[in-house]
Amino acid sequence: MALIVQKYGGTSVGSPERIKNVAKRIARWHARGHQLVVVVSAMSGETNRLIALAREVQSLPDPRELDVMVSTGEQVTIGLLAMALKDIGLKALSYTGAQVKIVTDSAYTKARILKIDEQRMRADLNDGCVVVVAGFQGVDEHGSITTLGRGGSDTTGVALAAALKADECQIYTDVDGVYTTDPRIVPEARRLKTITFEEMLEMASLGSKVLQTRSVEFAGKYKVRLRVLSSFDESDDDEGTLITFEEDENMEQAIISGIAFSRDEAKITILGVPDRPGIAYQILGPVGDANVDVDMIVQNVGHDGLTDFSFTVHRNDYQKTLKTLEPVIKHIQARGIVSGDKIAKVSVVGVGMRSHAGIASTAFRTLAEEGINIEMISTSEIKISVVIDEKYTELAVRVLHKAFNLDQAS
Amino acid sequence: MALIVQKYGGTSVGSPERIKNVAKRIARWHARGHQLVVVVSAMSGETNRLIALAREVQSLPDPRELDVMVSTGEQVTIGLLAMALKDIGLKALSYTGAQVKIVTDSAYTKARILKIDEQRMRADLNDGCVVVVAGFQGVDEHGSITTLGRGGSDTTGVALAAALKADECQIYTDVDGVYTTDPRIVPEARRLKTITFEEMLEMASLGSKVLQTRSVEFAGKYKVRLRVLSSFDESDDDEGTLITFEEDENMEQAIISGIAFSRDEAKITILGVPDRPGIAYQILGPVGDANVDVDMIVQNVGHDGLTDFSFTVHRNDYQKTLKTLEPVIKHIQARGIVSGDKIAKVSVVGVGMRSHAGIASTAFRTLAEEGINIEMISTSEIKISVVIDEKYTELAVRVLHKAFNLDQAS
Repeated sequence: MALIVQKYGGTSVGSPERIKNVAKRIARWHARGHQLVVVVSAMSGETNRLIALAREVQSLPDPRELDVMVSTGEQVTIGLLAMALKDIGLKALSYTGAQVKIVTDSAYTKARILKIDEQRMRADLNDGCVVVVAGFQGVDEHGSITTLGRGGSDTTGVALAAALKADECQIYTDVDGVYTTDPRIVPEARRLKTITFEEMLEMASLGSKVLQTRSVEFAGKYKVRLRVLSSFDESDDDEGTLITFEEDENMEQAIISGIAFSRDEAKITILGVPDRPGIAYQILGPVGDANVDVDMIVQNVGHDGLTDFSFTVHRNDYQKTLKTLEPVIKHIQARGIVSGDKIAKVSVVGVGMRSHAGIASTAFRTLAEEGINIEMISTSEIKISVVIDEKYTELAVRVLHKAFNLDQAS
Repeated sequence: MALIVQKYGGTSVGSPERIKNVAKRIARWHARGHQLVVVVSAMSGETNRLIALAREVQSLPDPRELDVMVSTGEQVTIGLLAMALKDIGLKALSYTGAQVKIVTDSAYTKARILKIDEQRMRADLNDGCVVVVAGFQGVDEHGSITTLGRGGSDTTGVALAAALKADECQIYTDVDGVYTTDPRIVPEARRLKTITFEEMLEMASLGSKVLQTRSVEFAGKYKVRLRVLSSFDESDDDEGTLITFEEDENMEQAIISGIAFSRDEAKITILGVPDRPGIAYQILGPVGDANVDVDMIVQNVGHDGLTDFSFTVHRNDYQKTLKTLEPVIKHIQARGIVSGDKIAKVSVVGVGMRSHAGIASTAFRTLAEEGINIEMISTSEIKISVVIDEKYTELAVRVLHKAFNLDQAS
């Protein structure tokens, strides 16, 4: 008997029929003797509907009140799923984030989980109950409702798995695992049996939308066994893609695991920045204070005491970031700012990179051969990311996928 | 400076535009120096949408889980109204029933309020905040979400007014007061400046849908000054209809205040019931245990040791009641059951009835002249109710309204 946390995303619970299917899937796992905690997202489209409604009332919705109303999306789903489970004879109880005391900080719309009280869930599980919990939401120390930001239901799933010391956290989604790249762009893309946490982290942060970044970090930190599966696969394939901690745990020995891409970013370059200590903090401090996450940061060697400083942010934060920077630019006496949101970030990811030379040059040559200009470059131990013109996204992904032989089983 | 509780119903908050109008109305009261607690319903249609969704998943939705999802309707509205208030410069905070500790029993979908902790609201009010509270919902002692049943937002409003010792509880709705009868059926119907609590109670329980019965009882019990107003009236008429405790407090001296009617009921007659002590309890005990409210009860003098026992219930509870009675009928060895839900209840209401004879005979004669058959009769000190065939509803209301000269100002 294992304790399993399952998380079902918005498309998996997108209609009454699909919710009933999810209930049947849960019943199959329950019948095998497992204890189950199930985290659900809002029905697909619901969160966007609520945000649009809020914007009709207030163009820039108050974050506290936005969380109050947006969190209802998941609350509807937990009620429906608990009904579906009871309807087929299982014991089930639904809980909001506040009810199972998923305590977060007070950063409305982007809150972080501080602690979870697992006692109530544990008692229900021992009582034979399936526990259904609303993803994406929590409650701050004052009792106000918070949300974890987009994709936060994955984080809820992993955080509950960590708090309950679950044997496995299964993320059910509309894809049946992690692929070498998006199969809609490259039909030859292959599903990976395993992927390391580090690679997954890079893939997730790069827009490979299978899992939310923070949930992967969380899983790594608390050593939660994480598996990505499809909620639509009827073939009883319960394998999907396992995310591993150790490179040698059933590891496919590919050098490169996949090509990720993201069209969710905008780039900002501050021109003629005085090249002195502390200047990066003077620029990015206020951006961080405005609760904007910065992704790539590039600063080249300066000359004449001046340098250019570039970084990327999520497109949703683009206007806010520009506004935040206005006084900063005056204060540090920079020459000006250039920016744009018609960009894409494409990345080559693989732990094999550590021990293999020449990956970067293969990537750059491949893009050059197609006449694709590289605007920014950023590298880590297991990843090479480039920012290019948005219109070349698909082309870049396709040629890189081919260049690294990702269409061939290793 | 007064402390005022305002309650806005579903049509009053039925769209972003209407919510903004409600915010402006609140701002006008706030500008006059009043402290305001505002209770809101779900946007019109939302509760029905959620119930329909639940039924797609489970034909008879689990009551606990139904409350979890149906309560989201009000939660969306409080967020939106708080945004609208902040957008025009007021301080505002929204709270769910659980957040302001509206503690109820655990009778899901029909819960009763046990207590309210007003401290948090009081602190916000003293801080200059408009406090926005979700109507219709509470939380039981185990922390589970409950709802108060249809129209429960009125009860929330009155209960908050009682807990806060508010100067007045204003119920904003889509009508501008209490009328002698439904103006859609009788165009000559007049608005009453005042009505007594007892009359209002009868009118409410009889389907005059201005206020929910329980809220009027609550207001009477805690001596809450209650006023019914229109949220659509732009003429700055803040008078509406005041519900009075004392018959002489600005009382219009009409004998009859109004004609109420209800098409929400079903009648059940148990035939050949052994006429012995305790038999009524043997029949209605199980019905009450099934959480069904019984309205009219009629038992006539029996003969040959047998009698017929009739009562009415809400149409929503009709099938449940019949099912509940199956074993009861066998057990008490009754002869059988006849029932129907194509009925209407029409009532003549007025405190003047106490001191005026002949009201009943006028009512019965008026109906007889139109050939309307009376199936059941029930009377109280200030009301005469008859059950008739549903198809005669409008006709009965019109002729009774005329017979008691209700179209003429007193």
